[in-house]
Amino acid sequence: MAATSPTKQQLLQQGMALLLKNGYNYLGLTEILESTGIPKGSFYHHFRNKEDFGLQAIDLYMTGVHAALDACLDDRTLPPLRRVRRFFELVQDSYQGEGYLGCLLGGLGQELSGVSDAFRQKVEECMSAIAGRLATCLDEAVQAGDLPAGTNPQAHAELLVNCWEGAALRSRLRRDPNPLGQMLDFYFRQASA
Amino acid sequence: MAATSPTKQQLLQQGMALLLKNGYNYLGLTEILESTGIPKGSFYHHFRNKEDFGLQAIDLYMTGVHAALDACLDDRTLPPLRRVRRFFELVQDSYQGEGYLGCLLGGLGQELSGVSDAFRQKVEECMSAIAGRLATCLDEAVQAGDLPAGTNPQAHAELLVNCWEGAALRSRLRRDPNPLGQMLDFYFRQASA
Repeated sequence: MAATSPTKQQLLQQGMALLLKNGYNYLGLTEILESTGIPKGSFYHHFRNKEDFGLQAIDLYMTGVHAALDACLDDRTLPPLRRVRRFFELVQDSYQGEGYLGCLLGGLGQELSGVSDAFRQKVEECMSAIAGRLATCLDEAVQAGDLPAGTNPQAHAELLVNCWEGAALRSRLRRDPNPLGQMLDFYFRQASA
Repeated sequence: MAATSPTKQQLLQQGMALLLKNGYNYLGLTEILESTGIPKGSFYHHFRNKEDFGLQAIDLYMTGVHAALDACLDDRTLPPLRRVRRFFELVQDSYQGEGYLGCLLGGLGQELSGVSDAFRQKVEECMSAIAGRLATCLDEAVQAGDLPAGTNPQAHAELLVNCWEGAALRSRLRRDPNPLGQMLDFYFRQASA
């Protein structure tokens, strides 16, 4: 009977949703335990402490991000730039489902990078990983002539991820999708110009 | 003798620096009082509570932002797009002086907008005010033919502020100016293309 893993998964799912909504400092373990009905001892069986829990919640978030990247970037029926845009559109769909709470990476990155090197490095690694995957696809776009020759795919991918994070913040502040779409329109109109 | 105002100013200066570095939840009033040598009673003479203090620290931050906007946007010796870029370069200089801690608006906006409508609205108002001022200058750029006819200055100003915030987050995560310069290079190269 492998009950351990579903319990851990349930705790992380609930934690991830609360981290996105309220941030790390307002994350109450009591609230998570009560809402899941999981006893405290079980929590500390799976996680060393709140920090460990938060870092693993980011890992779970990234599982979803990589699944979306797989679904979009591997779709060879679309031209490479369209695949990259499709990824951000999928992310936007998930923001809509959550009520435009923005991106967990941006949220925790801003909240914690001043006080925790563990979170700062974790968020940086995650953003860098996303940019790395997008860069491969942007490189294909350069090869296909859909981006100007001489475009640096890695630099463009980082730029795209960073600008998206800013748009996600504004979307969170306004509970509004417009900053997201406007940023994508600008990038994809201009990048290929 | 008007000692009240300098005391308040000193508290806000110190609070603003600590908010930028560590965020709101880690802001200890005891730390501020000890480092300034100002007694607790004096703090509560000037501020209703920690929230009121944080909101007023944002006002102080915005005083600096508006001063930088004044210095750049009113400089008629430069063409309008150059004035807008100059503003962001001044902000980048101040980030450098602080060790690349990013933008207080983005930091508090991410940390608190899920749990405090007061902070969410405050940060949104501030970002909107900055965009409004930049839009006036971008409109001049459109009139001067430095941006394509049909460019919506307000939408471009919002875009610019949002992308900057994302670059500021990444700069904070990496303690590195490159994301800032890369974002400005992309925008100003492309916006006028």
